[in-house]
Amino acid sequence: MGDVAILGAGVTPVSRKGGSLRDLALEASAGALKDAALDKVDGLFVGNYAGGEMAGQYNIGPLIADQLHLTPAPAMTIEAACASGTAALHMAFLAVKSGLYDSILVTGVEHMTGVPTPEATRILASASDREHERDQGTTFTGLNALLLRAYLHAYNVDHADLMRFAVNAHKNGMTSPHAVLKKAITLEEAMASPIVSDPLRLYDCSPLCNGSASVVVASEELARGRDDAVWIRATAMTTDTMSFHDREDLLELRASTLAGRKAFAMAGWKPRDVDVFEVHDAFTIMTPLALESLGLYARGQGWRAAADGDIALSGSTPISTYGGLKSRGHPVGATGLYQLYESIQQLRGRAGPNQVPDAKRALVQNMGGPASSVSVTLIEAAA
Amino acid sequence: MGDVAILGAGVTPVSRKGGSLRDLALEASAGALKDAALDKVDGLFVGNYAGGEMAGQYNIGPLIADQLHLTPAPAMTIEAACASGTAALHMAFLAVKSGLYDSILVTGVEHMTGVPTPEATRILASASDREHERDQGTTFTGLNALLLRAYLHAYNVDHADLMRFAVNAHKNGMTSPHAVLKKAITLEEAMASPIVSDPLRLYDCSPLCNGSASVVVASEELARGRDDAVWIRATAMTTDTMSFHDREDLLELRASTLAGRKAFAMAGWKPRDVDVFEVHDAFTIMTPLALESLGLYARGQGWRAAADGDIALSGSTPISTYGGLKSRGHPVGATGLYQLYESIQQLRGRAGPNQVPDAKRALVQNMGGPASSVSVTLIEAAA
Repeated sequence: MGDVAILGAGVTPVSRKGGSLRDLALEASAGALKDAALDKVDGLFVGNYAGGEMAGQYNIGPLIADQLHLTPAPAMTIEAACASGTAALHMAFLAVKSGLYDSILVTGVEHMTGVPTPEATRILASASDREHERDQGTTFTGLNALLLRAYLHAYNVDHADLMRFAVNAHKNGMTSPHAVLKKAITLEEAMASPIVSDPLRLYDCSPLCNGSASVVVASEELARGRDDAVWIRATAMTTDTMSFHDREDLLELRASTLAGRKAFAMAGWKPRDVDVFEVHDAFTIMTPLALESLGLYARGQGWRAAADGDIALSGSTPISTYGGLKSRGHPVGATGLYQLYESIQQLRGRAGPNQVPDAKRALVQNMGGPASSVSVTLIEAAA
Repeated sequence: MGDVAILGAGVTPVSRKGGSLRDLALEASAGALKDAALDKVDGLFVGNYAGGEMAGQYNIGPLIADQLHLTPAPAMTIEAACASGTAALHMAFLAVKSGLYDSILVTGVEHMTGVPTPEATRILASASDREHERDQGTTFTGLNALLLRAYLHAYNVDHADLMRFAVNAHKNGMTSPHAVLKKAITLEEAMASPIVSDPLRLYDCSPLCNGSASVVVASEELARGRDDAVWIRATAMTTDTMSFHDREDLLELRASTLAGRKAFAMAGWKPRDVDVFEVHDAFTIMTPLALESLGLYARGQGWRAAADGDIALSGSTPISTYGGLKSRGHPVGATGLYQLYESIQQLRGRAGPNQVPDAKRALVQNMGGPASSVSVTLIEAAA
């Protein structure tokens, strides 16, 4: 069966105001179609978390297909909490592999600022186990605070060593064309930011925001002769328990470990074959855990990636190259596709001041819920 | 590439109280796995519309996968309004066709009675175009009232001739093991029921309710030697404009016409090759429009299917054999999979008092939004 490529990609600037869900999705989708030099596709898969509850719009697939004159092409939404974007990509990969579709527009979108922040927090917490976690008062900041405390304690690490991930993300965000938090921060400032959920501070957390990102997935046949095509070498999804209390080891992102192994096996790569990484840095604690789960650092050593400078654009393990979830922003259903867009720009050598030198292979790790749903995508530049 | 089969199916009784979303999905899923004689599958695709907003639970895939001990298998939710169930089936078909998955559990679930009825009405209306329809005061009862009035006027038909579809559905629901409205109704009673949205009456409408239905989709290899396997001969999805005001012809369900043609071409069947039909009878007006769109009746003649008795279990065009959306109920994200479950029971000869004699081929037509998303699935009994 043929390989599967990405022919084009588009994004909107991430923002904390303005733009309806519809307008955001249309802008990113139209950008991806233009970049792919296509005006028709065989289907539209939308990655979205809570368009219905946060923006009053379900059934986003036909809405966007209609506005882009893609009807009667099939269109539907895929939800896997914060991994919705790459879950939609995974489905598009399957659709093209099946031979029934030649091209799919995959658009992630989220509009989160139309509801008050406490309401948004409740809606996000509904991606954890409602009965056993959310209804007991748990939120995602609370769950991440718990992980942060466990990590600092288990490995005797300073909180500041994890906050370095946020400083790096904000540094890269300064020159990112679409980042929402364009603000350089110092480690001292970040460590002095307000406590959100002890020991988690404001600058440990990614912001609520609006945005959309889109890619065009296509068959090998459609990609033939396209020098700027990027190839999907692997897309692996996995799940873990919904509740932390059911996990044998709180500090292993088991689903990420397994998704990574599956993806590397599918591509025939080793972790260090990758040149540029986008990991799901929704909270600073997630970054070392992600790097460890992918086999890039030993257990308890992931924090060194920041402390030793490995994560810089010129380092051995560049991450969050356009600001990551922390500075570019985390519009939930769109996040995985922002990560993918940024990796594609890296592989095409179009990342400007954010360019990682000689990037040929990229990894996108995207997580949903309390790492209960994880995807790892591996992509490669055209030879 | 191999064919794709369904190895097992399960449902919960549809109800207007009781049962959490989690419990419903677990019961139907466990039933389908048991019926398929499998305890592991490669993935779980959930069909759901508004679990987050109506039942406080997003990220349903990992929740159910966890409880069924299916982790680390991938799990995610697919939403296409009221067609979510068969949209998830479509994805499962693609996944197995791709060769990357051998078996997928497809579970549709909806829990709608935890929110007050006006709230549920608003949430359902969010499957239409928010800006152009919902925010202008339109609801699905309103949109269907409009279609009903247009149909009665255009073809000079009596409302009572459409209400006969509801009477037939309730008749079949009386002996359906899982129907929610087990109540025989007369045409006179139905025509005397309260007006909901003029000229639409209460008995023109399907009820808000809770339920879950599930099937196990598997590769030809896994299905080998299974006499009770049912084969998926076609699954086609299409879209139409979101808003009625953009349609050239209000009385053609264009997406359904196109999905039907696509499915029949894929299976190599003609409409009259089918023995049993489940069409999306959420409102009585939808039934003749669906039958016409599928090429079973000429434009403006679909109402005759009820008036002439064709829709009876022993007729030429049996529909709503377990009560349809009208009497079995319409738990949105589960509906398409209830239709499928019922069709499977028909093809296996297990429908008891609801059995259509010698049913070998079945058609499931499932619609989302104002028929903006439509799927047609064709299945066949093992030879």
